[in-house]
Amino acid sequence: MDAEEYRKAAYASVDYIIEHFKTMDERKVVADVEPGYLRKLLPTEMPVEPEKFEDVHKDFDSKIVPGLTNWHSPNFLAFFPSNTSYPSMLGELYSSAFSAPGFNWICSPAMTELETIVLDWLAKQMALPKCFLSDGEGMGIIQGSASEAVITCMVAARDRYLRDAVASKYETEEEKEEAIANARGKLVAFASDQTHSATHKAALIAGVRFIAIPTSADDEFALTGEKLETALSSAEAKGLLPFFLTASMGTTAVVAIDRFGEIAKVSESRPHMWKHIDAAYAGAALICPEHQDMLDGVGDSYDSFDMNMHKWLLVNFDASCMYVRRRRDLADALSVMPPYLRNSVSDAGLVVDFRDYQLPLGRRFRALKIWFVMRAYGAKGLQAHIRKTRDIGQLFTTRVQERPDLFAIIARPRLGLTVLQVLAPEGSATTTNDLTKKVAARIEKEGHLYLTSSTVHGSYAMRVVTGSPWATEEAMEAAYKYIENVAEEERA
Amino acid sequence: MDAEEYRKAAYASVDYIIEHFKTMDERKVVADVEPGYLRKLLPTEMPVEPEKFEDVHKDFDSKIVPGLTNWHSPNFLAFFPSNTSYPSMLGELYSSAFSAPGFNWICSPAMTELETIVLDWLAKQMALPKCFLSDGEGMGIIQGSASEAVITCMVAARDRYLRDAVASKYETEEEKEEAIANARGKLVAFASDQTHSATHKAALIAGVRFIAIPTSADDEFALTGEKLETALSSAEAKGLLPFFLTASMGTTAVVAIDRFGEIAKVSESRPHMWKHIDAAYAGAALICPEHQDMLDGVGDSYDSFDMNMHKWLLVNFDASCMYVRRRRDLADALSVMPPYLRNSVSDAGLVVDFRDYQLPLGRRFRALKIWFVMRAYGAKGLQAHIRKTRDIGQLFTTRVQERPDLFAIIARPRLGLTVLQVLAPEGSATTTNDLTKKVAARIEKEGHLYLTSSTVHGSYAMRVVTGSPWATEEAMEAAYKYIENVAEEERA
Repeated sequence: MDAEEYRKAAYASVDYIIEHFKTMDERKVVADVEPGYLRKLLPTEMPVEPEKFEDVHKDFDSKIVPGLTNWHSPNFLAFFPSNTSYPSMLGELYSSAFSAPGFNWICSPAMTELETIVLDWLAKQMALPKCFLSDGEGMGIIQGSASEAVITCMVAARDRYLRDAVASKYETEEEKEEAIANARGKLVAFASDQTHSATHKAALIAGVRFIAIPTSADDEFALTGEKLETALSSAEAKGLLPFFLTASMGTTAVVAIDRFGEIAKVSESRPHMWKHIDAAYAGAALICPEHQDMLDGVGDSYDSFDMNMHKWLLVNFDASCMYVRRRRDLADALSVMPPYLRNSVSDAGLVVDFRDYQLPLGRRFRALKIWFVMRAYGAKGLQAHIRKTRDIGQLFTTRVQERPDLFAIIARPRLGLTVLQVLAPEGSATTTNDLTKKVAARIEKEGHLYLTSSTVHGSYAMRVVTGSPWATEEAMEAAYKYIENVAEEERA
Repeated sequence: MDAEEYRKAAYASVDYIIEHFKTMDERKVVADVEPGYLRKLLPTEMPVEPEKFEDVHKDFDSKIVPGLTNWHSPNFLAFFPSNTSYPSMLGELYSSAFSAPGFNWICSPAMTELETIVLDWLAKQMALPKCFLSDGEGMGIIQGSASEAVITCMVAARDRYLRDAVASKYETEEEKEEAIANARGKLVAFASDQTHSATHKAALIAGVRFIAIPTSADDEFALTGEKLETALSSAEAKGLLPFFLTASMGTTAVVAIDRFGEIAKVSESRPHMWKHIDAAYAGAALICPEHQDMLDGVGDSYDSFDMNMHKWLLVNFDASCMYVRRRRDLADALSVMPPYLRNSVSDAGLVVDFRDYQLPLGRRFRALKIWFVMRAYGAKGLQAHIRKTRDIGQLFTTRVQERPDLFAIIARPRLGLTVLQVLAPEGSATTTNDLTKKVAARIEKEGHLYLTSSTVHGSYAMRVVTGSPWATEEAMEAAYKYIENVAEEERA
C-alpha cells in the first residue's frame, strides 16, 4: 500500500467510522454470532499475494463488524462504559504513525514528557492529594489497565515490605535472605469482598495470599475501619504478614466507596502496608467538584491511586492513569539496567525512564490521545460529559424508584449505576432471585439492550449503567420501558 | 468535536502523516531537545474551555513532533526496529473507533476469534511446531510486549511447578501449603547472560531467583546444553529448584541463537521446568523459509514461544505474538471468575476468554491491524520486506568487512545486525574499547545517525541494524561512509 492508496483508504475509513456512529441505533448492541462463526468465514492460511484494501475492507464490513459488540451504543448498559471520542481516535492515529516503544526518555522524549504533564493536569483537575504530583516524590504514569496498575503496585509493595519490614531486622546478607524466604509464604494482600477481581489476580501473579474482607449492606458494601481492623488482627494472630490493601472508590458490582479515613487510621500502626486506591470507574467523576467528596479521608497516606480514562472519560482503551506517592518504590522493584539500554541522559539521572515504573519494557504513546481529548473538550467539556451521562443513568434510577411494587434497588445508586431486582409477588412460588434471573436471561436473549447481571451477597441483580458519549435520555427512557415490560410479563 | 470537524481533522492528519514519511530524511533522527523542554512550552493546568483542533494541531506540530525520535527513519540504526505501515495504521484507526476491553468472548466475539485465526496463520507461515496451533491443546495470543509474554509464562510456570513438582508429593492440604511456602524461596529461573533483561525483570515480578548462565564467544554467545547442565546441576546441588528457562532466538546485543536441541536434551530429566523461547526480533525472519533452520532442535518440547510483529514485521507497537503448547497452563494460573464476568457462553465452555491467558483483564483489538497487514502485503510482501531490510543490513556488514584494518566485528553478523568495534592502532596509548566509545559518543552528539552501543563480555561495541520499511541502500551506504569517516578521524 503506497502513500496514495493509504490516503484513499484512510479517508474512506474515516467516512465509514462516522457513518457507523450515525447509524449505531440500527444495529444490535451485542454481536449476534455463534462461537466459532469467524473460522468458517476465513481461509486457514494467510494469503500469499498482496490484496487490495477495498477487498480487505469488504470482508471487514461483512465479517468482522457483525461480530463486534457495540460498546458505544445508547443501548449498551453493561459492565462499565468503554468510551471513545473523535479527538481520542486522532491521538491513536498519530500514535500508530509515530510508533515507538518509548521505554527510555531518549527513545522519544515527548512521549515521556507529555505523559507527565497531562497526568499532572488530570491530578489537579481531580483534586488528588499533592503527594501524587510529579514535582515532589510522586508521579503519574499511564498503565494499560487498572489490573496492570494493581499488579505493579503490589509487586513494589511486596518488595518494599520484604526489605523494610523483614530484611531490615537482620545484619548479614545470609540472615536477610533466609528471613525473606521465610516471609514470602506469609505475605497477604487484602481487599473487600466487593473489590474488583484484579486484586485477587494480582496476588496470584505476585505469588502471595489474598484475603477478601466481608462487607455488609448496612455499610453500603463499603470496607470500614472496624472490619479492616478485625481482618488484619486475625491474620496477624495467625502469623501472616499484611503488606497490601486495595481500597475501592467505586466497586464493580455496586460502586461502593470504601471508608478511606477509617482505613487510614487503622493502618497507622502498620506503616509498611501499601494502600492502593482503585478508582477505575468512579475516579472520572472527580473532575467535577461536586463529586470530590469521594476523596474524603484520603489525605496523603495512600501509596497509590488509579483511574481509567478509558472507561468514562472519553479516551479510548487503553489509558489507565496511575499515581504513586513515592515513585522510587516502583523503580526499586522494577529497574533492571542492561548495557544496551544505557545512554548518556539516563546515566546522568536527568530523566525518568518509564520502563522502571511498569511491568513491560516497551510502551505506546498514549499521552497524545489524552492531551488531544483534554484540549478538544476542555475541563468544561469533560465535566459536561460526566454530568450528562450520570444524569441519564439517574433518570433510570428514578423510573425504577417509581415502581417499588415491581423493582427493588439493592444498593445506593451512585454515579448513574442502578442495581435492581425484579420483585417476586408475595406468596409466589418463585423467588425474587429466580425471577430476576429469568428477566435478565430474556433481555440477553432478545438482544435489544445489553446489561450485566451480578450476585451481591447472594442477591441476583441486574446492573444498568451508561456513560457513552452517544447515550441519550430517549434511549434510556425506552430501555426502562422495555425492562419494565419484560419484568411485568415474566412476573405475570 | 462533531462528526464533520472530525472528518476534516482526520483527513488533514492523514495528509500530515503521509507528508511526514515523505520528508523524513530532512529531519534529525533523534529528537534534538533537552530534558524538561516540554514543561516550559505547555501550561501547568488543563484548559478550561474547549479548543479548536487546528490550534491543538499547531502545538502538536511545533512542540511535540520535534520531541519525537524518528524510529522509522533510514538513519535509525539503533536497538531493534519498531515498524509501522499504512495498513497497520488503518487497523489502529478502526480499533480506536470500535474501542472495547475485550476480556470475554462476548465482549466482542470478532476480537477473540480473529486473534486466534491470524495467530494460527502466522504460526503456520513461521513453520512453528504444530503443538502451538489452536486446534489442539495450544494457542496463540497477542500480548503487549515480549516482556509481558515472559512474565505471563513465568507465573504459569511457577504455579505449575509448585503444583506438579512440589505439592503433588504430599497428601493433606496443610502439608501441601507448607511445602509450597518452603519451595517459593528456592525457585530459580535461568537464561543466558545474553538474554534480554525482560527475563530477569520477570523473575523480580514473580518473586523468584534468577541465574544468568555465562556464554562464550567461542559458542557465538549461544547457550549450549553443556553450559545449561552445569548451571542446573550446580543450582540443584544447592537445593534450588530450576522451574523456568528462557532460550533466545536472537539475543539483543548480538542476535545469538541458543542451541535448542541441546537444551531440550538436557531438560529431559527436568520435565517440570518450563522452557520459553524469546524470539522477539529474529522470529520475524521465520516467515522466510531460508531462515527456518533457526527452529532446528525446537521440536515439540518447548512450552512457549514469543515474537514481536511490532519490531520487524510491519505492525505498529503493540503486537507481541505469544504461543503456548498447553493453554490450560495459563488459565490454571490466571483465571479468577467473579460473578460480574459470568455469562452464558463462557459458562458453557464454548469459548476462550482471553483474560484468563494474560496479566490484565482488559485488552485492545490488536488482531485487526495484524489481519490488515497480512492481507495487504500477503506472505510474499512480508517476505520481501524482511529480505530487503536484511540485505540492506548485510550491505553494511560487507563494507565493515572490507576494512579489517579499521573495524573488528565481535559476533557473527546475523539478520542484518553488525556489532563492531573501531580498532585502536597497534602500539597506541588508547584501547579499542576507548576508541570505540569515543566514536560512538561523537556519532551520538552529531545526531546524523542513531545507533546503540553495548558491552558484550567486556568489549564495548556499536550495533548497527535497520528494518524500517523506509530503509534504503543509499542511506545505508551513506551511514557506513559517515561512520568510517568518524572512525578514521578519531583514530588519527
